[in-house]
Amino acid sequence: MSKKLSIAIAGLGTVGAGLIELLNTERELITARGSTEIDVVAVSARNRNRDRGVNLDGYRWFDDPVEMASAPGIDVVVELIGGHDGVAKSVVEAALRAGRHVVTANKALLAHHGTELAALAQEHGVTLGYEAAVAGGIPAIKGLREGLAANDITEVFGILNGTCNYMLTEMAATGAPFDDILSDAQALGYAEAEPSTDVDGYDAAHKLALLASLAFARPVDFDAVSIEGIRSITPTDISYADELGYKIKLLGHAKRDGARVIQSVRPRLVPKSLPIANIDGVLNAVVMRGSFVDEVLLVGRGAGGGPTASAVAADLIDIARGIKPPIFGIPVSRMQSDDSAAATDPESSKDAYYLRLSVKDEPGVFADIAATLRDQRISIETVVQRGHEPGEAVPVIITTHPATEDAMRTALATIAAMDTVLSEPQLLPIVSAE
Amino acid sequence: MSKKLSIAIAGLGTVGAGLIELLNTERELITARGSTEIDVVAVSARNRNRDRGVNLDGYRWFDDPVEMASAPGIDVVVELIGGHDGVAKSVVEAALRAGRHVVTANKALLAHHGTELAALAQEHGVTLGYEAAVAGGIPAIKGLREGLAANDITEVFGILNGTCNYMLTEMAATGAPFDDILSDAQALGYAEAEPSTDVDGYDAAHKLALLASLAFARPVDFDAVSIEGIRSITPTDISYADELGYKIKLLGHAKRDGARVIQSVRPRLVPKSLPIANIDGVLNAVVMRGSFVDEVLLVGRGAGGGPTASAVAADLIDIARGIKPPIFGIPVSRMQSDDSAAATDPESSKDAYYLRLSVKDEPGVFADIAATLRDQRISIETVVQRGHEPGEAVPVIITTHPATEDAMRTALATIAAMDTVLSEPQLLPIVSAE
Repeated sequence: MSKKLSIAIAGLGTVGAGLIELLNTERELITARGSTEIDVVAVSARNRNRDRGVNLDGYRWFDDPVEMASAPGIDVVVELIGGHDGVAKSVVEAALRAGRHVVTANKALLAHHGTELAALAQEHGVTLGYEAAVAGGIPAIKGLREGLAANDITEVFGILNGTCNYMLTEMAATGAPFDDILSDAQALGYAEAEPSTDVDGYDAAHKLALLASLAFARPVDFDAVSIEGIRSITPTDISYADELGYKIKLLGHAKRDGARVIQSVRPRLVPKSLPIANIDGVLNAVVMRGSFVDEVLLVGRGAGGGPTASAVAADLIDIARGIKPPIFGIPVSRMQSDDSAAATDPESSKDAYYLRLSVKDEPGVFADIAATLRDQRISIETVVQRGHEPGEAVPVIITTHPATEDAMRTALATIAAMDTVLSEPQLLPIVSAE
Repeated sequence: MSKKLSIAIAGLGTVGAGLIELLNTERELITARGSTEIDVVAVSARNRNRDRGVNLDGYRWFDDPVEMASAPGIDVVVELIGGHDGVAKSVVEAALRAGRHVVTANKALLAHHGTELAALAQEHGVTLGYEAAVAGGIPAIKGLREGLAANDITEVFGILNGTCNYMLTEMAATGAPFDDILSDAQALGYAEAEPSTDVDGYDAAHKLALLASLAFARPVDFDAVSIEGIRSITPTDISYADELGYKIKLLGHAKRDGARVIQSVRPRLVPKSLPIANIDGVLNAVVMRGSFVDEVLLVGRGAGGGPTASAVAADLIDIARGIKPPIFGIPVSRMQSDDSAAATDPESSKDAYYLRLSVKDEPGVFADIAATLRDQRISIETVVQRGHEPGEAVPVIITTHPATEDAMRTALATIAAMDTVLSEPQLLPIVSAE
């Protein structure tokens, strides 16, 4: 390792500018901690003349980030362009092929091409750092890959999207519906004009796919993640959940089930007794359950220039220190794909469920619903039904003991088809208190 | 790095036995993740014949752990004997001098001799791992040293003793006084027969000294930690704190103050809005505040065979992977001692305070107290005084705006000397909500 690490930054948005500011502000400390100077020597972005609040004089400018990726005199390429294909992928591939280390915050790219890029990095003897790609400033990758490396991980889940967590928190605080809170969040800059990536769960799913690969030594498999966002959550759901002792959180969740790993992003009820239930606002949080460590929770800011730059710079300091853990915790050749022929463990794949129905107030309605659940061997834990005016549609809230999702879906199809059931039922799994 | 890492374990208590169990149970996974087999080859303990629930056949037995530390064929010595001097220190020194890596869970040893042992390890080109010494299974050392390496750390604090956190949680839940809860905790095995190390804050102070060194690039300085345990906390304190929106937690706390670092272990009021306030029972938690990352919280089990063995094994896997970060985050030669001649920053050293007084119910008592605070330029935030029978001693609870500890102590000396103030006042700092 030379006494200077020369880095090139591709993409100068909030995170790129934040990284330059961080490397300038903390230069002395970083040099001492890494025993190496970390110098930005080259940058590339779409528009050379935009004011980013940082001085770019003294850095070599490249119009073409792919050209920069293999230019001489560069040790590390930091990819902050974003997008799961196109130029970001070309930059990372060109850099790895040229024997440059790569550090990226690009969760979409790695969710789609993580395994092949890790293999390429391995082949060229370089590092592919992505601490910033999952949960921003929280050292979740390092915590799982190194801190919990001695554990058989049974389950990893987390609040992986700050926009959704902020919106659910606001819905709980104000009682306002999704659409209103979305408008507010957009006005405040907490949600994008095109909010789908966040509120429909894709951003969280990108991150979950990376955590799942790391936790279970599997190839990154974004297509295996079942994804459901928060659009269906109503103030009624939030207030009944609260009454029953739960918060509603959008959780990325991965769990071993026999020889398979089940990956999902969906809203879940979280018992208030679990510390993650109380992680509100824009904060992110990751829970890791392992064979010996029991449970670890990590909390912090999942987005923003400062926290994300902190994670990018942590990867750079790792490189400066000569720290090169296996990219996904294990050499790519030793990853095992899911054995889809293997038997699943029916017990481990069960969840307790929250069910919200809107029913006509007629004699026998609840008896029909209860019988349908019984026929699927689903046992009811609690039922909440409030007083109301005769003839009104009435919400019925049911929580169940653990059941398979198949049984729940089968029962729900029957229930949804009843004349007395008025609108689309809401079905949400409940996180176990352990 | 050979394809096999041979380890010797000195000390076979709960953690030593847990480590052997972990290395056996997770052998395949650890070999894959570290690309190296980790084999126990030698063990040493006081009593060879005690049943520890693990099979010691096949390991070389040493009556003398110091002899084992430099015996041939050993790559890493795991020191789990404990104690800040004596045989544990001799084992670690002998191992480092013989060029063995050392992994230890011994917070007392490192709190007293950490800097010199780190220098010895550096000199011999080996690692001194101590993830298990702070907050058990939580990757706090790795999180701070590597995950937040790019940040100027402004403050680090945490719940570092599970016994105290359990006891404070039980006091809050039951309203019972310290002595009763201590007896219960002893009966349940959550507190030792000789509880002073835990309840008087020394164990937390050992861990805090290590975190402070790492956070602020200072030599480990246990003697600089001001230490106060939880014996003075009453059910009255807990219930008034609750009413005012706080929980009482025993926190290890280190903060930069100009060119100095202020280290303490003492009970503090924590706003319930901070996630760490809700970390209850035996759990530990560490909060790190940094210049770019904002705030990160790590939560998990701080003790017990499984979690502690998980942390020891994480250090072993780091060694297997060739990961060798600077032991206290920076080479020992670059650590800076406190500049005690430097000016302190009066603003940064201020805390808000909680004050509980027991006063005679006479006219003018509160006026005297308020005047004394005013004379020290201490501004009152809230006062709580309840109705009571005439002539009774009455508790008065005051919270203040931020003030220096000197001003508070001066005011308190005056107040405590008043005839109308009946018993020792309680003074607790309040953690800022940020």
